[in-house]
Amino acid sequence: MLKELKERVCEANLLLQTYKLITFTWGNVSEVDENRELMVIKPSGVPYAELTPSSMVVIELATGKQVEGTYNPSSDTPTHRYLFNHFEKVNAVVHTHSRWATIFAQAGRGIPALGTTHADYFYGEIPCTRALTSAEIQGEYERETGKVIVERFSKLDPKSIPAVLVHSHGPFCWADNAVKAVEYAVVLEEVAMMAYHSILLKDATQKPMDQYLLDKHYLRKHGAQAYYGQNR
Amino acid sequence: MLKELKERVCEANLLLQTYKLITFTWGNVSEVDENRELMVIKPSGVPYAELTPSSMVVIELATGKQVEGTYNPSSDTPTHRYLFNHFEKVNAVVHTHSRWATIFAQAGRGIPALGTTHADYFYGEIPCTRALTSAEIQGEYERETGKVIVERFSKLDPKSIPAVLVHSHGPFCWADNAVKAVEYAVVLEEVAMMAYHSILLKDATQKPMDQYLLDKHYLRKHGAQAYYGQNR
Amino acid sequence: MLKELKERVCEANLLLQTYKLITFTWGNVSEVDENRELMVIKPSGVPYAELTPSSMVVIELATGKQVEGTYNPSSDTPTHRYLFNHFEKVNAVVHTHSRWATIFAQAGRGIPALGTTHADYFYGEIPCTRALTSAEIQGEYERETGKVIVERFSKLDPKSIPAVLVHSHGPFCWADNAVKAVEYAVVLEEVAMMAYHSILLKDATQKPMDQYLLDKHYLRKHGAQAYYGQNR
Amino acid sequence: MLKELKERVCEANLLLQTYKLITFTWGNVSEVDENRELMVIKPSGVPYAELTPSSMVVIELATGKQVEGTYNPSSDTPTHRYLFNHFEKVNAVVHTHSRWATIFAQAGRGIPALGTTHADYFYGEIPCTRALTSAEIQGEYERETGKVIVERFSKLDPKSIPAVLVHSHGPFCWADNAVKAVEYAVVLEEVAMMAYHSILLKDATQKPMDQYLLDKHYLRKHGAQAYYGQNR
Repeated sequence: MLKELKERVCEANLLLQTYKLITFTWGNVSEVDENRELMVIKPSGVPYAELTPSSMVVIELATGKQVEGTYNPSSDTPTHRYLFNHFEKVNAVVHTHSRWATIFAQAGRGIPALGTTHADYFYGEIPCTRALTSAEIQGEYERETGKVIVERFSKLDPKSIPAVLVHSHGPFCWADNAVKAVEYAVVLEEVAMMAYHSILLKDATQKPMDQYLLDKHYLRKHGAQAYYGQNR
Repeated sequence: MLKELKERVCEANLLLQTYKLITFTWGNVSEVDENRELMVIKPSGVPYAELTPSSMVVIELATGKQVEGTYNPSSDTPTHRYLFNHFEKVNAVVHTHSRWATIFAQAGRGIPALGTTHADYFYGEIPCTRALTSAEIQGEYERETGKVIVERFSKLDPKSIPAVLVHSHGPFCWADNAVKAVEYAVVLEEVAMMAYHSILLKDATQKPMDQYLLDKHYLRKHGAQAYYGQNR
Repeated sequence: MLKELKERVCEANLLLQTYKLITFTWGNVSEVDENRELMVIKPSGVPYAELTPSSMVVIELATGKQVEGTYNPSSDTPTHRYLFNHFEKVNAVVHTHSRWATIFAQAGRGIPALGTTHADYFYGEIPCTRALTSAEIQGEYERETGKVIVERFSKLDPKSIPAVLVHSHGPFCWADNAVKAVEYAVVLEEVAMMAYHSILLKDATQKPMDQYLLDKHYLRKHGAQAYYGQNR
Repeated sequence: MLKELKERVCEANLLLQTYKLITFTWGNVSEVDENRELMVIKPSGVPYAELTPSSMVVIELATGKQVEGTYNPSSDTPTHRYLFNHFEKVNAVVHTHSRWATIFAQAGRGIPALGTTHADYFYGEIPCTRALTSAEIQGEYERETGKVIVERFSKLDPKSIPAVLVHSHGPFCWADNAVKAVEYAVVLEEVAMMAYHSILLKDATQKPMDQYLLDKHYLRKHGAQAYYGQNR
């Protein structure tokens, strides 16, 4: 059962590699079925070259029970499940350790909205959760990770800000379907990379080159006396 | 009509992907016809894999009316049109969210001329516009974007500085034809990347390695007693 | 003899290129045989395109004597040998000058554990050795490099922190076998890259873009009045 | 004549593209013949796809006169020629605007020797020239560029430091032959990239992640209770 859904979840997981969002098996994508009773998710630690639709794992949302699949599900399954059970308009979740988003997570900071690339996809800062407590980490860690995300969105709309950074960990994104969620993960990485560098650039300064060197180079290629390249 | 022009505009749009200047559909190139009556521009939100010369859209410069094409034109069309109507020597315009140029735009700063790579193409700082006002953004936003660029060039020559950064947004470049405009977009990215790092390097310092380690490594490969590699 | 071991060591050396951890011949991988009597290591300065299992060099661990192979062994052989002779649970060693790990080594700093990507593989900071003294460098330099690594691990467990940075030099990693050691070298590079940027980001700040620009861009794509792309 | 030399110079110019040291036609390599009477150099502004051995240009070292070739030589020819006439042990010269070396040149700084990667190839800091004066730039600019390089090496040995940065411009490297000179250009870029980041890292700090999160992630993959991946 869930043939089409397994195909899409498998495809979305493979896209993580296509878009260079992952190293080895460091990512996972899931999506719920139409009735929001089951979720399909990547198996744990299986090389991407061996992923097929039939290796996807099916989990019951209400109980967390594995109902299909020969492999263990991703170890992050309880986080996905918690998000589906609390973000009722979210159908698909993706988790990676993509470089630039993780850099912000490791600095314990959200990604501020600094430009229109960000604004085209995310309606405001992409927030960072608080750090989990020792008790949360020693308890049901992956479920608590879901809880701290939901807590962070208590006054935010997950539909208009479809991503979060888990403190000292990395990003989760979500969307209407698994392929779309990966698209958000791509944009998140792009937006994080640019925000990072805009932030560091902000107050740095340097005076320009000498005017006569500027003149020389521009004019040897473009002026009336240009002598670069072949005769035109 | 405009067969050759549509081919070149299509080719130039595809070059944005070749040169890795865009993610998904985040860019657009346009060019005017010889009489400066019509402009050919990319359709909005169509995947690059599906772009063909016949999917290009034709717009009347004087009125903004779409005169050919089954798709909607790029949502940035009013910006392109404003530039053509006010920069009379500019035949082609390209807009991207290329990473390093956008980083400067997001920091609200121009790219200073720091070296001869810059000077070979741009005769001075690549300017950043002022931020648009709330009224401008809530009005005809894309047209106002064109206006703020033209305002920024009131004392600058668009032919000798064929690029601008729109504040909190990203770069526009222009040239004699669409392919040449993309070439400028490539150079802009290169120049922005290098300026960024030169600026941050300027005042940082570090003392060199120990002299005896320098001696050891250089001499084990190059000295009379070198023992690296196979016997020569 | 050692056919299978030579194949694996050769494969692991070639993986350094696949994973872009090396420039030219700047890396070497070795592994000991089951009895910990012999080690197989890459020859020195041979182009990667010419590496074959039969070009690997076999060294006796107890004496350092070359017992097989027509080429000279890697010039770093005495470092590998010292590590095998002192880290009894380590079967394979890899050395590269991979960019981000080397950047930390050149700054004379360990890589702090800043996130779960790090914690998934390394149980704490990846330490940096002290700088070698002039006497150590002018003595048996490569052997002293091994010694300073072992000294650095006097209170650390090489199994739970399977990597080190040699001061002003670069990283060494180790594992149960040569291919696994290269996997650690890949993770080390990823972890170093992200730690670097998290550290620099920590205290930098920038205020977000104007709210009305955020509104405009988000809503022109997502709001009820969205006009980006084709009609849906 | 000079068939073999033209082939090697052509090959070396093409390697600039292979190693991603150039954008468009921004680089040139030359080499002198055995008698040091003639130099072979890339033509100016010809796309790399069209470079062939027979398109190389031959210049007389003593006079600068073009003695073979239908194209104009690289506009940087007088710099190459000046170097050959003053560095008597240098047979080949390469010039690029490679990113990281140019970043140092634009900051007006040499590249300090910070690690053994550097020491394996360059015996000390890779120096940066002084800025050229207005008179030098308005005079025989490309020849003056050669002069300021030679001036910078008045107390340095070009054989042991086979590279220089021209202030506000970019790098020149040299070696025994054209292919070897390109190899140095590759190493220069690697060394510059790593020095840049080591310098910026030097004084930045960040405290490590929480110990309990470190424990959790390391132990869920490696401890006795590990539950990541499939059952082993």
